Amino acid sequence: MTTLIAVLLFDRFTALDAVGPYEMLCRLPDSEVVFVAERTGPVPNDRGDLHLVATRTFAEVSAPNIVVVPGGPGQDGQMENEALLDWLRAVDATSTWTTSVCTGSLLLAAAGLLKGRAATSHWLALDGLRRLGAEPTGRRVVTDGKYVTAAGVSSGIDMGLTLVGRLAGDRHAQAVQLLTEYDPQPPYDAGSPEKAPASVVEEFRTGSRFILR
Amino acid sequence: MTTLIAVLLFDRFTALDAVGPYEMLCRLPDSEVVFVAERTGPVPNDRGDLHLVATRTFAEVSAPNIVVVPGGPGQDGQMENEALLDWLRAVDATSTWTTSVCTGSLLLAAAGLLKGRAATSHWLALDGLRRLGAEPTGRRVVTDGKYVTAAGVSSGIDMGLTLVGRLAGDRHAQAVQLLTEYDPQPPYDAGSPEKAPASVVEEFRTGSRFILR
Repeated sequence: MTTLIAVLLFDRFTALDAVGPYEMLCRLPDSEVVFVAERTGPVPNDRGDLHLVATRTFAEVSAPNIVVVPGGPGQDGQMENEALLDWLRAVDATSTWTTSVCTGSLLLAAAGLLKGRAATSHWLALDGLRRLGAEPTGRRVVTDGKYVTAAGVSSGIDMGLTLVGRLAGDRHAQAVQLLTEYDPQPPYDAGSPEKAPASVVEEFRTGSRFILR
Repeated sequence: MTTLIAVLLFDRFTALDAVGPYEMLCRLPDSEVVFVAERTGPVPNDRGDLHLVATRTFAEVSAPNIVVVPGGPGQDGQMENEALLDWLRAVDATSTWTTSVCTGSLLLAAAGLLKGRAATSHWLALDGLRRLGAEPTGRRVVTDGKYVTAAGVSSGIDMGLTLVGRLAGDRHAQAVQLLTEYDPQPPYDAGSPEKAPASVVEEFRTGSRFILR
């Protein structure tokens, strides 16, 4: 049976949030990926210069096996979008895995799906996640039941590969890792608030440094 | 002065090859990114289920500062596409940095831009890169003059962040790394042919294991 993977898109999503897990999960054996939004057609990312095409409307995707919810600055504008939240609740009712990257977990929480569950989000959004009823952890990939949430932007790659291992076995996941040459060698070691220079962390927390998330 | 970044697209490119470096480079201060292809409009990736939109034709982008060439199974079909190779030669004539991810370096080499230069590519394509006149290395990100080539798929993130550091300084690059929470924690350690189980490597080399690159 084909594994149907639905990746949600909305205006001002962050591209890597969606494409990171996509690039891992699309290599599950016998899988099909659809990009889902309120309307089909190009959806602009957080900078407006990248567009991913939504190939299905909410109404057209009713029972995906895996749901992937990216984050990005546009998440904020969707927190009361009942069409989107209704779709999340509807597909979650039958999904095998409901997942998110970055502030996508705030959308899952707004839909009422993370109440009392361990979850994570972008490091700047963990307090917001708690206010929505989840139990934030600082871990990079958090699994609680069928809910798998990942931290900021790039963490979706780790989330996707983790899920490939759960679904297709370690050996297949290792093959996917090798084929995508996922042997990360960042030129700096500043990828978490614990590791980055304290002054840079502080600039983000106070809003004095601004780079589009 | 705005830094103009041109990301090349062609049929059956690999999405993460383009989006990985995009997500780092788009955060350079005062930068603009354009997605360039032979024709504007949606360009299908290697699985045909993801489409990135090309916003400019070759004729419309004549002098980008940074050129990013992704790879993917579709690279093979472009090796004699003179429109694409001519564009690469033309923009390379005035670029500050000419870069590639994965088999994108084979396109740069086919355009005659890597003759005698140290470069890299997807681990399965290093022999092909040598046949095209470059000097392949097994390193993940290789800089030779203004040419920066990266290994397979996910390595474009490291390449992009490396370039952000060169252009905007270590502190800005660290801020970008923190904001994208690029603190990779792969669940396996199989991301290179030296680290993956030998039998998995062998299956790819002999073609007995097939997962779309």
